[in-house]
Amino acid sequence: MPTESEPDAARRMPLVPEPTLSRLPIYLTYLKLARKDGKKYVSSTMMAKEMGVDPTQVTKDLSHTNIVGKTRVGYEVDSLIGELEGFLRFNTMDYGYLFGAGSLGTALLLDHGLAQFGFSIRAAFDVNPDKIGLNIGGTTIYHLDDFQKVKRPDVRIGILTVPVDQAQRVADVMIAGGLMAIWNFTSVRIRVPEGVVVQNTSLYAHLAVIFNRLQASSTK
Amino acid sequence: MPTESEPDAARRMPLVPEPTLSRLPIYLTYLKLARKDGKKYVSSTMMAKEMGVDPTQVTKDLSHTNIVGKTRVGYEVDSLIGELEGFLRFNTMDYGYLFGAGSLGTALLLDHGLAQFGFSIRAAFDVNPDKIGLNIGGTTIYHLDDFQKVKRPDVRIGILTVPVDQAQRVADVMIAGGLMAIWNFTSVRIRVPEGVVVQNTSLYAHLAVIFNRLQASSTK
Repeated sequence: MPTESEPDAARRMPLVPEPTLSRLPIYLTYLKLARKDGKKYVSSTMMAKEMGVDPTQVTKDLSHTNIVGKTRVGYEVDSLIGELEGFLRFNTMDYGYLFGAGSLGTALLLDHGLAQFGFSIRAAFDVNPDKIGLNIGGTTIYHLDDFQKVKRPDVRIGILTVPVDQAQRVADVMIAGGLMAIWNFTSVRIRVPEGVVVQNTSLYAHLAVIFNRLQASSTK
Repeated sequence: MPTESEPDAARRMPLVPEPTLSRLPIYLTYLKLARKDGKKYVSSTMMAKEMGVDPTQVTKDLSHTNIVGKTRVGYEVDSLIGELEGFLRFNTMDYGYLFGAGSLGTALLLDHGLAQFGFSIRAAFDVNPDKIGLNIGGTTIYHLDDFQKVKRPDVRIGILTVPVDQAQRVADVMIAGGLMAIWNFTSVRIRVPEGVVVQNTSLYAHLAVIFNRLQASSTK
């Protein structure tokens, strides 16, 4: 009996809890290594053990993706990889713009790892006249004032790597230009209108954690 | 009356909760911008408002550092900056080694932002013969086999940016060589002996969060 097609797109892309979203790429990496080792099936117990998490956590995380394992056999590695890549949107290419081609910005332009996860930087923007027109790792640097002119409607993500005293101002420019998500690498908490996605990635915050853990363990 | 010096170093460097440690650099950045704007004092209310957190959260976070504000006046900006930098160990230089001078590793070698937060990469290691002996951003790349020979006892932090199928093996080499903290940029959950600090920084996990949030909001 033919079934009607599912018109409810929202059901297919629910808001997944951040801790789960952070673990799914870890599972994906584990599965790819398992496939390389010739494994056809993996159980949630095996995955949990390898990754130091609880087996029920693995089952619960994967339940968000509508993937189901088979009793006693577990998950089929090949199809689980495909499902996870699709669910995480790592197998379709998304595009973004970079704002601030300084030290960290240039670093991100040179990191080709992002492309493997379905992300590519289409253009970069800066205000330093020495940088305008340069091509770094295949990406052209434009003046920030030309953002509206250069911007394409299919690009919704902006990476923010400007100096801290410019962070809010440039974020405002990004939003005024129609970007819907800001990947904020600065240590400034930027303010955005409702509906705009902000993901903070602070390398320096992680450094603070490492320093504290090292100090705490050596003074025990 | 003279007091005895405090021999209990552990009390001066307690294990601070990770969310607090992640927020302190954000406060620090805010304070530096406030100083630039000529502000002498800030209140926890003002800081909280600027950063979109609860005022009691700010007070609670800062209480870990032994910094106390004055009633009605608030915190003195200059001394709070100094205290925070000291507490976060951003004003003393710590050194680390980098393992894997690929795309992301090279990016980190070129990011001079880390030095501002008290971290400097002393040497890098790789196995690619084309890379051994190169100097990237002032850092020399050695063969991984020479790690024990090159290693200095004052360096305790290692950055892991190798391909995923090498992550555990290289982590084992780092630990065998005496490193006490691994800053893991790979999407592999590495296993380490008790006492070794691991900080996972997965850019791709953050990308997964952005993709999901964008999809979820556009299919609402």
